[in-house]
Amino acid sequence: MKKIGIADTCFARYNMGKAAISQLQSMGSNFEIIRVTVPGVKDLPVACKKMIEEQGCDICMALGMPGPMQKDKMCADEASNGLIRAQLMTNTHIIEVFVHEDEARNDRELAWLADRRTREHAINTYDLLFRPERLVAQAGTGQRQGFDDKDPVYL
Amino acid sequence: MKKIGIADTCFARYNMGKAAISQLQSMGSNFEIIRVTVPGVKDLPVACKKMIEEQGCDICMALGMPGPMQKDKMCADEASNGLIRAQLMTNTHIIEVFVHEDEARNDRELAWLADRRTREHAINTYDLLFRPERLVAQAGTGQRQGFDDKDPVYL
Amino acid sequence: MKKIGIADTCFARYNMGKAAISQLQSMGSNFEIIRVTVPGVKDLPVACKKMIEEQGCDICMALGMPGPMQKDKMCADEASNGLIRAQLMTNTHIIEVFVHEDEARNDRELAWLADRRTREHAINTYDLLFRPERLVAQAGTGQRQGFDDKDPVYL
Amino acid sequence: MKKIGIADTCFARYNMGKAAISQLQSMGSNFEIIRVTVPGVKDLPVACKKMIEEQGCDICMALGMPGPMQKDKMCADEASNGLIRAQLMTNTHIIEVFVHEDEARNDRELAWLADRRTREHAINTYDLLFRPERLVAQAGTGQRQGFDDKDPVYL
Amino acid sequence: MKKIGIADTCFARYNMGKAAISQLQSMGSNFEIIRVTVPGVKDLPVACKKMIEEQGCDICMALGMPGPMQKDKMCADEASNGLIRAQLMTNTHIIEVFVHEDEARNDRELAWLADRRTREHAINTYDLLFRPERLVAQAGTGQRQGFDDKDPVYL
Repeated sequence: MKKIGIADTCFARYNMGKAAISQLQSMGSNFEIIRVTVPGVKDLPVACKKMIEEQGCDICMALGMPGPMQKDKMCADEASNGLIRAQLMTNTHIIEVFVHEDEARNDRELAWLADRRTREHAINTYDLLFRPERLVAQAGTGQRQGFDDKDPVYL
Repeated sequence: MKKIGIADTCFARYNMGKAAISQLQSMGSNFEIIRVTVPGVKDLPVACKKMIEEQGCDICMALGMPGPMQKDKMCADEASNGLIRAQLMTNTHIIEVFVHEDEARNDRELAWLADRRTREHAINTYDLLFRPERLVAQAGTGQRQGFDDKDPVYL
Repeated sequence: MKKIGIADTCFARYNMGKAAISQLQSMGSNFEIIRVTVPGVKDLPVACKKMIEEQGCDICMALGMPGPMQKDKMCADEASNGLIRAQLMTNTHIIEVFVHEDEARNDRELAWLADRRTREHAINTYDLLFRPERLVAQAGTGQRQGFDDKDPVYL
Repeated sequence: MKKIGIADTCFARYNMGKAAISQLQSMGSNFEIIRVTVPGVKDLPVACKKMIEEQGCDICMALGMPGPMQKDKMCADEASNGLIRAQLMTNTHIIEVFVHEDEARNDRELAWLADRRTREHAINTYDLLFRPERLVAQAGTGQRQGFDDKDPVYL
Repeated sequence: MKKIGIADTCFARYNMGKAAISQLQSMGSNFEIIRVTVPGVKDLPVACKKMIEEQGCDICMALGMPGPMQKDKMCADEASNGLIRAQLMTNTHIIEVFVHEDEARNDRELAWLADRRTREHAINTYDLLFRPERLVAQAGTGQRQGFDDKDPVYL
């Protein structure tokens, strides 16, 4: 049975791991879920790599909520670079789901955005693992996770 | 037979993968094309590395359309670094074709630019694989993909 | 017996290593502590990797205090990237505890912040090693180390 | 016989590869030259690594001419990071020769600068390979490639 | 007998390599010194890695003097990232000693700063190799190399 790893953080202000698990479980039962929580986004890369190499995960989701300050943006950049490096070292996809605190206008929208982006990326994760042809069908269609999709453009 | 890997994204607003395949197929039939689509540009590095190592691709094209915001520029930078790393880990060229949404003045130009840049880089991809001497002949001639070439300068 | 590595710097203006050791020792005696001190934050990545690979540490804390200038911010970024790389090369967590000198309004607050952030991350370190379920219970609750936690948000 | 690899780009507006080869050939005949041309600077790292690992080059020159826009500066940074990574993976020097288009006031100066910087770095390349003691003799003397050298300073 | 590698540049305006060797030789004779000089700071990472892996150095100093322009700052950042990567690949410390040309108000101060920072880091290098307990004793004491130390802060 395939295994999906979910890593989230104590730093985030919304329980993104719970949303991811809820969404995935609504989509099927043909996989097992492993979950870990780490302090912040910079701890996500090794957490995902360990789930892949030590627990046999076939794909991971890395969930985080970087803060609004310049320092936080730098942390998010470092974490993203690490997540890409972890994928290259393992030949395994890790879907990064970062919600920047300053993307939302208020707490209510922040919760909504974190929930929806996580769920939409949970679907991407499921698709990458079980039905990649569904992603090919969406190539170039301006998909966004959280806020509204954008319009595709044509010649 | 040589294999060319094409990776594009659901995030892009133009079907760049389709344009790349169309251009390549117009150039010859001495190769096989593998295509995958991933959610966004940060998923491209591992997608290409997997096509190289697991499916035997001899070269790849990584096609993406980063958004106009600062956050999007950072994503593009992370993806580019990952694509270079993937190349170094596999000794295989991956031609990056990124069209920044804010390079075009309107949707019509965006479609035009994405199509033309993709096609011109598909030619580069074909040349790297089958006729590298054609690139040597163009050394230092100010080639641009999409918008007009620049003039070469002389002593 | 588990081993925890502590690396700090001569550049820092507060003895963060001592605070980390004091906090850890107050939490249990089921582990051994290894400590090294290096000149600055850019020396931390290899120091931690050596503690992991040459001395068998199961987890590390990397403690530093970057200065307030642009040059210092760049050093911190380089060090962070190195720490993530070290973790990925060893499949071992390294908890980064950086206190930027300009986060505090005066020397008194700087000492307070360095001490508290170090101690709170020492607890995270202990939790990652011995009771990871405690971190899962804190997922998405807006935990901050040093200054006050933030409020979680709900749908 | 030693092998020197030369990689340049179609993007550049001056034939830097030709200048490098011309300069090297004027210096001796105790080496063989391999040359490849790639589309842009981001393709240089893997091109050099392949010349080192697949064709046995003992040293490489990576020649490029980044454009004047912010996007171009980012590309140059990514390429430079890749070139350093390629060197570390092969324990082989790759001399980076980048001429930023906005370093020159006009096309005439751009051609002059690209030619002179390339030639001066070709001498460095030759020295690293055949007479490293000549570089030690120049330590701390403010050498610049292209524009004028700077004055050394003394206690 | 332990070996210390010294790498400096022709780009620097002060003979930092000579200062490092002079300082180290004043401290003891229980080690051998290897010295190489490269064109600029971006050539330092592989130069150090080669001294470690091909000549058996137990520690290195990487000495450079980045210029004052934005382009130079970027080069310094790339070099620093490479030096950290080189350390992680070899489990060996490389003490980076960079003097930014714009840190000094005039040529006289630049020479003074380059000399003093190099010498103070030569002592750190010696300490890391032969008496690491001396660094632990200085943990958190605000040590700076070149300009004055800063005051430590207390709870």
